[in-house]
Amino acid sequence: MVKESFLKKQYVDPKITLVGAGPGDPDLISLKGIKALKTANVILYDALVNEELLAYAPSEAIKVYVGNPSGDENFSQDVVNQLMVDYALNFGHVVRLKGGDLFVFGRGYEELDYAASYSIETSVVPGISSAISVPGLQGIPVTHRGLSDSLWILAGSDDEGNLSEELKDAAQSRATVVVLLGFDKLPEIVALYQAAGKGRLPVAIIQNGSMANERVAIGIVNTIAEVAEEQEIDNTGPVLLVFGRAVELSRQFQHIHQFFQLTACSEHLGE
Amino acid sequence: MVKESFLKKQYVDPKITLVGAGPGDPDLISLKGIKALKTANVILYDALVNEELLAYAPSEAIKVYVGNPSGDENFSQDVVNQLMVDYALNFGHVVRLKGGDLFVFGRGYEELDYAASYSIETSVVPGISSAISVPGLQGIPVTHRGLSDSLWILAGSDDEGNLSEELKDAAQSRATVVVLLGFDKLPEIVALYQAAGKGRLPVAIIQNGSMANERVAIGIVNTIAEVAEEQEIDNTGPVLLVFGRAVELSRQFQHIHQFFQLTACSEHLGE
Repeated sequence: MVKESFLKKQYVDPKITLVGAGPGDPDLISLKGIKALKTANVILYDALVNEELLAYAPSEAIKVYVGNPSGDENFSQDVVNQLMVDYALNFGHVVRLKGGDLFVFGRGYEELDYAASYSIETSVVPGISSAISVPGLQGIPVTHRGLSDSLWILAGSDDEGNLSEELKDAAQSRATVVVLLGFDKLPEIVALYQAAGKGRLPVAIIQNGSMANERVAIGIVNTIAEVAEEQEIDNTGPVLLVFGRAVELSRQFQHIHQFFQLTACSEHLGE
Repeated sequence: MVKESFLKKQYVDPKITLVGAGPGDPDLISLKGIKALKTANVILYDALVNEELLAYAPSEAIKVYVGNPSGDENFSQDVVNQLMVDYALNFGHVVRLKGGDLFVFGRGYEELDYAASYSIETSVVPGISSAISVPGLQGIPVTHRGLSDSLWILAGSDDEGNLSEELKDAAQSRATVVVLLGFDKLPEIVALYQAAGKGRLPVAIIQNGSMANERVAIGIVNTIAEVAEEQEIDNTGPVLLVFGRAVELSRQFQHIHQFFQLTACSEHLGE
């Protein structure tokens, strides 16, 4: 019986909804995202999505894991695009559930464009971007009066895997700079900040932001690589880098600051 | 009876939760935000918040409108901070519900810091930032391979109401530039882009993004002021400016593009 009503749906209304799942905590999806999941016939979800969210979908919905399209050859963007369209044409409402937000290095537009080329109706449910929320949850406001008046979000690498060229300008700016997909390039990015005379600028590195297995390294440009190693930050799970004076406001940095003041003080007394 | 249990709560557990309400559509709040509202004794909400969200709070919760702290003298940031703390000390769980996200020009950290100075427990529920979601809902991805590899978010004015100095660098960058609180400065910002030789760069202006009364103007740097006037964009409600090649992807821009191609074509034939 269930199967029959399910089949009935299949050929009626091909539709694709792109949903941003947020940074990882499953409660950070929007109500609109949950509503979309509840009416899904098929869900295509990627590596950054918290699987608890799949429970919102009807039990008969097809759930398809599509890996990390930017890093996994088995699930290239082309394959995901084609799966999305095939499932929509055959089963109806496809929810394409993506980690974080859809459009900050999320390749959301490419998926919309591909669906449009088949004249399939699409809609968009934005998600909470990790670039803003993950620092915020760590007590680092991406903007703050007197410390940072703007936020520049970049990727560490360009399409060819080289250091993103705009990072040099970003390192010279006064913006809070958030680098996604950039942990591999940390030594090069540190070098750019050092070349800009900013060896003492505060930096945070956050892995698996908003999740139980979150790891945080806080330091300054000159020390951050070492701190990241101490905190055992690695590339298993999303990592973001935050450069800028707003990092000073995190509680952890205030402890470092007090330590350095005390050190400076005792050095001064020792002279 | 209700009152008694309410009074009982009041002196137990002062707590402040900052919740980002998202860009305007009430379904774009997070599940975590809704859960916070459901346990609120008091809600302090500002001008950018959709009032439908107040329905999630218990009916006996106190709902206090605190205007637009950055623009309204009656509700300066100091007044809001003090109200927040007084209500928490007297009534328990205060939800500070803010439009958009908390930390992108949201002054969220100032509120957390003030609460901390009274040793009141705080927590943070990030919201969907307008700067990313509002363009996305209009088919403008803030990053897109080959068109824009980064996103720079700025305010139009500094604390003194002058044109933000970083806008000059932003106008020279290849980033997608999103300007919040900048509609008043449109002529000056346009002049910066023209000085950078970018008179033909695509621009979008979006007022009341994600809401029923949304207005959109799409054009290029040289024409955008005129288009905004035609579309009757004004400062009643949040306005954001988007400069960058990614604006080309919006359906509306593609119509303009076709029009210009046809025009260029007929000019060519006429030669």
